Amino acid sequence: MKAAYMFGPGDVRVKDVAMPTLQKPTDAIVRMVRACVCGSDLHPYRHMEPHAEGYAMGHEMIGVVEETGADVTAVKKGDFVIAPFAYQDNTCVFCREGFQTSCPNGGWYGGEEGAEAGGLQAEYARIPQANGSLVVVPGVTENSDDALLASLLTLSDVYLTGYHAAHMARVSAGDTVTVVGDGAVGLSAVLASHQLGAKKIILMGRHKERTDLGREFGATDVVAERGDEGIQKVLDLTHGEGSQIVLEAVGLMPAYVQSYGVVRPGGIISRVGVPQYEEAPVGFGSLFGKNATLTGGPAPVRAYLDDAVPRVLSGEINPGRVFDKAVRLKDIAQGYKAMNDRVALKVIVKP
Amino acid sequence: MKAAYMFGPGDVRVKDVAMPTLQKPTDAIVRMVRACVCGSDLHPYRHMEPHAEGYAMGHEMIGVVEETGADVTAVKKGDFVIAPFAYQDNTCVFCREGFQTSCPNGGWYGGEEGAEAGGLQAEYARIPQANGSLVVVPGVTENSDDALLASLLTLSDVYLTGYHAAHMARVSAGDTVTVVGDGAVGLSAVLASHQLGAKKIILMGRHKERTDLGREFGATDVVAERGDEGIQKVLDLTHGEGSQIVLEAVGLMPAYVQSYGVVRPGGIISRVGVPQYEEAPVGFGSLFGKNATLTGGPAPVRAYLDDAVPRVLSGEINPGRVFDKAVRLKDIAQGYKAMNDRVALKVIVKP
Repeated sequence: MKAAYMFGPGDVRVKDVAMPTLQKPTDAIVRMVRACVCGSDLHPYRHMEPHAEGYAMGHEMIGVVEETGADVTAVKKGDFVIAPFAYQDNTCVFCREGFQTSCPNGGWYGGEEGAEAGGLQAEYARIPQANGSLVVVPGVTENSDDALLASLLTLSDVYLTGYHAAHMARVSAGDTVTVVGDGAVGLSAVLASHQLGAKKIILMGRHKERTDLGREFGATDVVAERGDEGIQKVLDLTHGEGSQIVLEAVGLMPAYVQSYGVVRPGGIISRVGVPQYEEAPVGFGSLFGKNATLTGGPAPVRAYLDDAVPRVLSGEINPGRVFDKAVRLKDIAQGYKAMNDRVALKVIVKP
Repeated sequence: MKAAYMFGPGDVRVKDVAMPTLQKPTDAIVRMVRACVCGSDLHPYRHMEPHAEGYAMGHEMIGVVEETGADVTAVKKGDFVIAPFAYQDNTCVFCREGFQTSCPNGGWYGGEEGAEAGGLQAEYARIPQANGSLVVVPGVTENSDDALLASLLTLSDVYLTGYHAAHMARVSAGDTVTVVGDGAVGLSAVLASHQLGAKKIILMGRHKERTDLGREFGATDVVAERGDEGIQKVLDLTHGEGSQIVLEAVGLMPAYVQSYGVVRPGGIISRVGVPQYEEAPVGFGSLFGKNATLTGGPAPVRAYLDDAVPRVLSGEINPGRVFDKAVRLKDIAQGYKAMNDRVALKVIVKP
């Protein structure tokens, strides 16, 4: 079967590899109907050390169950399923507390040969902990409407990562929210804040096609300026007081600095952009002095899936609109390039 | 009148200075009945650049109102009052939201000659924004019981700073809380967690007299080990899962590292020890990866005073037990030395 591997900066290729097989009784094999390229895939695309064998890529997939291990009871052959970007047993104490990305029996997709699980930018994938990971979507098939499939695919990561940012920040009716970043996660955070009833949603981003979609998703204001100028604009939009909630959907230091610059005293910064730094300002001059809270992390999308699927099926939310380019799996390198060049916002992958 | 000034490391002296006078119609003059030395006073005591004029010291005081400006209506001459460690108007939007330490009309005590307000380790003090800052304690006089006065004094800072840590971490009935630091703020955080109903309170500290008081305040477990060994002990005490809530009451980097080491996935670290660092780990390996929340800051004690005063007056809580040494103002240098040498936990100052 075909699967995408990354070998170095800018170097993504599709390899022919062996079909995945059941390795544990808790595994399932899923045939990919849609996969996609994640903003986080662009970090190694820009900075990875060259690697001769390559790393298996991809962690977002919807598809059809082909085969199940003996202990798998939650899904069966033929089911149409969503695979969250991390797998988990969904029964341990951390899963029950809603932090499935910390499941001790869970893990991540992709990486080196011999990693626990392969990548999901592939024709077929082995899904560990299938009972806890796969979510069946009733009434949907691989021939369902393209837009519906796209929206369901966002529930494997991007939309529910945006939702996680809003959830961790306790966005609720009437809130003022600033979203830093107009990538697919940032736009998802806008849509999630809107879904949760935020009244004023300020989107910080400078790519007009993206911020236009942000407005359709519910942004009430767009701030294209960055740095001190951007901070001042957000303060101007909040009576000089700052934003109660800031959702940081980038993961780079300038976005972090922007976040504590615009957050209101006593406010919350919620990060879901995977931080490309380990140390950051947290002292009196940044977070502490104004009692700002810093929260967020890898989204436990499994926690939010049961609520989100019906909203997509009913058309209440259309998070799949973040996809603006489609490629075949064999052409996925073009998808990476388009996202890296900012020609595409987010690229969906077909078999 | 006499007032304490710090001139350099280890160099605290009492100067004779002019009596404070009303400078604005919102000011009040308060005669000190009790003041004290704060753990945060020890940071300059150890590290300050020598300064010829000295810095006015102290930010905790209870006393008797001597004089009030024309706009002061909340207190009158003869009232027994508590002065929170920061002043505020208590009417602005941030005050109304419970973050009085961010009041744009507020500020801090002490510092250089010409600072907005003097220090409170003094016989008399000018309290700006008296309406919003001073809280009258009915039925108490300077001749009231020493222990009661000590407990009321803790409401100007130390107890309610510990309480703020617990409040920001949303400690509630049944919670597991780990307190990092057995100083007066750490012990106050133990007592506050107990007051808020925490079930398991793990105190990390290695000074037996202090942790013994911690046990009396409600600590159920004491971990004397530090670093990786201390982290492992806390994990052992929490089924290997970590502590849902960590209250960091030190402000130094090892305490921060210990905090993210023991926090449970999805848990909360609440800091009230004034950070002696600006940058700290917040990335995938520390906070982000396990969805840990970092909160806290300078305590808006004014927000908690109205609730706390009756609890002290009724004897429900006795936070004044953190004081284990008393000095006269003229001898305050001995108090600083005793706290710096860890001979005293916290020093109360009498006129």
